[in-house]
Amino acid sequence: MQHSQAPTPAQAGASWPATYTRVVLASRPAGLPQPDNFRVEQSAAPALDAGQVRVRNHYLSIDPYMVGRMYESRSYAASTGIGEIMPGETAGQVVESRHPGFAVGEYVVGPLGWQEQAVSDGQGLRRADTSRAPLQAYLGALGMTGVTAWYGMTQICRPEHGSTVVVSAAAGAVGGVAVQLAKARGCRVVGIAGGAAKCAYVTQVLGADACVDYKQEQSGQALGDALARCAPEGFDACFDNVNGWVLDAILPRMNLHGRIALCGMIARYGQAPNHLAAHGYLLISRLRAQGFIVWDHVDLWSQAVDELGALFDEGRLRYQETIAQGIEAAPGACIGLLSGRNTGKQLVRLIDDQ
Amino acid sequence: MQHSQAPTPAQAGASWPATYTRVVLASRPAGLPQPDNFRVEQSAAPALDAGQVRVRNHYLSIDPYMVGRMYESRSYAASTGIGEIMPGETAGQVVESRHPGFAVGEYVVGPLGWQEQAVSDGQGLRRADTSRAPLQAYLGALGMTGVTAWYGMTQICRPEHGSTVVVSAAAGAVGGVAVQLAKARGCRVVGIAGGAAKCAYVTQVLGADACVDYKQEQSGQALGDALARCAPEGFDACFDNVNGWVLDAILPRMNLHGRIALCGMIARYGQAPNHLAAHGYLLISRLRAQGFIVWDHVDLWSQAVDELGALFDEGRLRYQETIAQGIEAAPGACIGLLSGRNTGKQLVRLIDDQ
Repeated sequence: MQHSQAPTPAQAGASWPATYTRVVLASRPAGLPQPDNFRVEQSAAPALDAGQVRVRNHYLSIDPYMVGRMYESRSYAASTGIGEIMPGETAGQVVESRHPGFAVGEYVVGPLGWQEQAVSDGQGLRRADTSRAPLQAYLGALGMTGVTAWYGMTQICRPEHGSTVVVSAAAGAVGGVAVQLAKARGCRVVGIAGGAAKCAYVTQVLGADACVDYKQEQSGQALGDALARCAPEGFDACFDNVNGWVLDAILPRMNLHGRIALCGMIARYGQAPNHLAAHGYLLISRLRAQGFIVWDHVDLWSQAVDELGALFDEGRLRYQETIAQGIEAAPGACIGLLSGRNTGKQLVRLIDDQ
Repeated sequence: MQHSQAPTPAQAGASWPATYTRVVLASRPAGLPQPDNFRVEQSAAPALDAGQVRVRNHYLSIDPYMVGRMYESRSYAASTGIGEIMPGETAGQVVESRHPGFAVGEYVVGPLGWQEQAVSDGQGLRRADTSRAPLQAYLGALGMTGVTAWYGMTQICRPEHGSTVVVSAAAGAVGGVAVQLAKARGCRVVGIAGGAAKCAYVTQVLGADACVDYKQEQSGQALGDALARCAPEGFDACFDNVNGWVLDAILPRMNLHGRIALCGMIARYGQAPNHLAAHGYLLISRLRAQGFIVWDHVDLWSQAVDELGALFDEGRLRYQETIAQGIEAAPGACIGLLSGRNTGKQLVRLIDDQ
């Protein structure tokens, strides 16, 4: 429609397709998301207005919070509308610019959604220094994932040197950074992960002192007993990505005045309401439990990336990636995330030539 | 046994009985406490050692936390032992002193247990200024009860002027002070209480803007709907004394970044495990929930009593008392507390002559 008004690629000094592929929410899931809840569609590239940039997205980040947005929810929880583009962070390159703050060729990260290219007014775009780390790291350990772990661990868990910290989904992208931040602060760290391979990764690569394989435990009681064997001293802080029965197993083992960062509810998405039975320990043990999302704390972003970058430079910020190829693979990658099919950060590569 | 070594009443300038009555834990409750879980017994008054005082207790405070201590629990949660004296705060008068810090005739408050008299080394004893307020107020609105409400409201809820606060068990001794502290800070306050008379007290005497009668609501959903009608703007802070289904009704109505002070679990004592279903809102709405007991914060006691005393002097700290007569009435008063038979602070008067 407006495509005839767009400058040609030659004018902008870069090339991009006149049409591109994106993924929208086709319907709300009844239970866990299914492929037909997503729709892959073509879109014409709009022209830029003054103050806008065009970004060619190289990577799309797939994260659990996206699943939460697929469901109907109360007004201010920002549910994605039917037919709207699926939300998500991307990393890419500026290919056209009418914005004074961004030059063609610069690499940026931002909330540009499940699409091969995007037009942005610059809001929420952050530059990525690809001389320091690969572009996609700025979606992961040096981006939203890492800052999420940093906020929960340093601002809510606040573990002291020598204290004991438990991290659920410890092999995951967020949990893995949380483990390493606690280790860097001199804590004993117990991870919880699913399967022997993930547990080995948590202890041998990320450096946790122990890791409990929840898939080996038949009940919450058994999981709790396994945690007690790993940490008879109890937990002073908890970074929780799972909620539900895993949190129930942790709560009775929290020490007095412990802190719990509530970061995710993997156990809950698409499933029947997941009751909490051990919440009485919040009072008995005078705990503080705090839910958070990283977007409420963007003022601390550069402080977080400074610390994460320093760890990265020293080789002490390890992470894994699972990379799907092509925008059409995004729905499957998202569905796979919920069953733990990924290892570490789940990304979708949107280009072929890098 | 040691009684022959004690100074006579005449020596100490006061009189006290050579034997006295106390109440011990006879057995652990299976379900709600029953009369036979308590045993009333006689005890000989021991002699004082150097550094000790003898206090004749005038009032005993009956509080929900005592019930929690009657059950078996993990080691550090301070379960009362079988045959041990029931724990509790008392207010009384020093009748004999070998302690340099306390003189005969002074009024004191402290953790002296369910007994007519007690020997203390002074630890935990605080003086009560009976020229400012009646002695028993230092067990209530100007004592543990008031300081509990003060800590939860001012240090955890931290409501801003113009925000909306919900208080459960709002007609209770703690809840009633919490309501008035929030009103004094310029908040809109919605109470939750059981029965029309208590709700009228909460709005007409304590000054809450609205009060929901939970006994009129058939379900958690109905209670939640009633709360939504009273506060369509949602709650910025919650002072919770009840937990369980009442907290479940509150959680979905908490505004973003709301604070929840977890002060009590009246709904839970002696009953089947009380699951929480709406805990996901802790994450969805990025709430902070914090359990506390006032004894962890004695460093703030005088600051709290300063503020409470100023409100009291201005006539803006209203409270009700239900007073049972005689130590033998303490078990019944404690059992009655759990069914809400009391109005306001439940006390037992241990003397006849005041």
